[in-house]
Amino acid sequence: MSLTRRHALGAAVVAAIAPTIVRQGQAAQPPAANQAPGFYRFKIGDLQVTAINDGVAFRPLDGFIKNAPEAEVRQALAAAFLPSDKMTIPFTTLVINTGSKLVLLDSGNGDLGAPTTGTWMANFKAAGFDPANVDTVLISHFHGDHINGLRLKDGTAVFPKAEIQVPAPEWAFWMDDAKMSAAPDGMKPAFQNVRRVFGPIAKDVKQFEWGKEPVTGITTISAPGHTPGHTAFAIASGNGKLMAMSDTTNNPALFARHPDWAAVFDMDGAQAAQTRRKMLDMAAADKMQVSFYHAAFPATGFIAKDGAAFQMIPASWAPTI
Amino acid sequence: MSLTRRHALGAAVVAAIAPTIVRQGQAAQPPAANQAPGFYRFKIGDLQVTAINDGVAFRPLDGFIKNAPEAEVRQALAAAFLPSDKMTIPFTTLVINTGSKLVLLDSGNGDLGAPTTGTWMANFKAAGFDPANVDTVLISHFHGDHINGLRLKDGTAVFPKAEIQVPAPEWAFWMDDAKMSAAPDGMKPAFQNVRRVFGPIAKDVKQFEWGKEPVTGITTISAPGHTPGHTAFAIASGNGKLMAMSDTTNNPALFARHPDWAAVFDMDGAQAAQTRRKMLDMAAADKMQVSFYHAAFPATGFIAKDGAAFQMIPASWAPTI
Repeated sequence: MSLTRRHALGAAVVAAIAPTIVRQGQAAQPPAANQAPGFYRFKIGDLQVTAINDGVAFRPLDGFIKNAPEAEVRQALAAAFLPSDKMTIPFTTLVINTGSKLVLLDSGNGDLGAPTTGTWMANFKAAGFDPANVDTVLISHFHGDHINGLRLKDGTAVFPKAEIQVPAPEWAFWMDDAKMSAAPDGMKPAFQNVRRVFGPIAKDVKQFEWGKEPVTGITTISAPGHTPGHTAFAIASGNGKLMAMSDTTNNPALFARHPDWAAVFDMDGAQAAQTRRKMLDMAAADKMQVSFYHAAFPATGFIAKDGAAFQMIPASWAPTI
Repeated sequence: MSLTRRHALGAAVVAAIAPTIVRQGQAAQPPAANQAPGFYRFKIGDLQVTAINDGVAFRPLDGFIKNAPEAEVRQALAAAFLPSDKMTIPFTTLVINTGSKLVLLDSGNGDLGAPTTGTWMANFKAAGFDPANVDTVLISHFHGDHINGLRLKDGTAVFPKAEIQVPAPEWAFWMDDAKMSAAPDGMKPAFQNVRRVFGPIAKDVKQFEWGKEPVTGITTISAPGHTPGHTAFAIASGNGKLMAMSDTTNNPALFARHPDWAAVFDMDGAQAAQTRRKMLDMAAADKMQVSFYHAAFPATGFIAKDGAAFQMIPASWAPTI
């Protein structure tokens, strides 16, 4: 085919009849199909911590913040350089190798989350972990995105050898059949899901109180409001300290700046805001490293006071552990 | 050995003589040896961009900022939650697959940087790239951490098929033997290194002017001061735009907050500060996505105006491209 002839044809026609010619204009390197694996390691004293991403979910803005007009929420999202037409909710769990135990803090969405989630196991394995090696899972609270990773839709227990430890007040609330009966219809599935996950192992689940150390180096911290038994975890080793804030905030890009906003998932909005301010104040005062379950991956950083509010400063990515 | 006997021995002795007993107290999962690979992908319109980390270097604070007292610098580092006893300088290059070309913006430290750098090729390969597939390398300026990746210490050309394009004013400055003779002794090695890298291919190196589009979708932007020919790159496709700021700042965690500070590497500190303010102002006004060569990996985000200064807000990590 002559050059003149080729020029006379539309590009689509050329592509259809002469792919090798068109390919000359393409990079030898094809575009990549996948993002880098979603894990990131860091040390807290002698402990090795690995953040594991479980994707991201999006929620309509309508009704998401219970006590602020949608226009203000849109503005705050834009100021955080997030899409302003929806709520962006990332999921990141922590794996802690204490040397004597491999510990998970929460378990991700399993196979029951939004289609843009559910990448936890692939990322966990990409990080070199084996679910059969998990010794202990500490659960912050009983919302599905934190517990569904324990048990697949088909009933399979995901961490066959792990001891499961949960907040005693959380267990008391969600396993109370009277509370399930009294709950509004919209909340009943959450109660049922708790039974789906924990029912088959109810007698083996260990309950912890706040202020205890269920695993050496990991202390449970009272943080109620988001749910009645919502728990944060202080991880300490040597001079290192990390506060795993769990759902003390939803995405801190929004809630550190607006600590008094109540997300639709906060069961007691006022108590959640009180806990949030207390925890963020403490993190800022102590300049301690923090992790948030719903911050952008790797979801760890620091809290700076900013007027009457706060700001999360992501930790600088380190090329070595 | 009886339990009593074991308890009577020090832990170190037990570890030495009875490793299998001690191992019972260890996690089945050994601690990991390596960080996650340092690459991160995102799209700008139809272009696929991959940030590739080349490690991080540290510099003594003494003399690093030419126009601020060291105590102020330490304070600013602490406020950014960076180590306050040294300057932390990460390195991140960009790979752009335009569909028709695989393009690099700068090339990293090669095998001539600090021992905590030089991970570029491993990360590039982990991202699925082959150096033989690189079509074009666009160079922002001639400092070693940007050009040494083009040619190994032993003389090997790293990207055998790539066309190398450099800023014309940068070439004019560094390849001028009279300027090399007139330069202070401390600067002579930089002139010699430019000859080491480009000498063998001098006749093939293409020079670009500012305001041109050496690769479709990538426009060269005048950004002098750091070096005479220092260049930023505007990457555009569809509605997407990214400003690759090159060394318009050293680590923006420090310099966005203190845009008038002159780093020891800024050859003309006043001009560099003027360029920096202009570029940061533009990025803030246009809310455009930016990348910095010396930001914490993945080194991309946005610029917010903050009083008379600025702040870099890292982009939220996305689990999909």
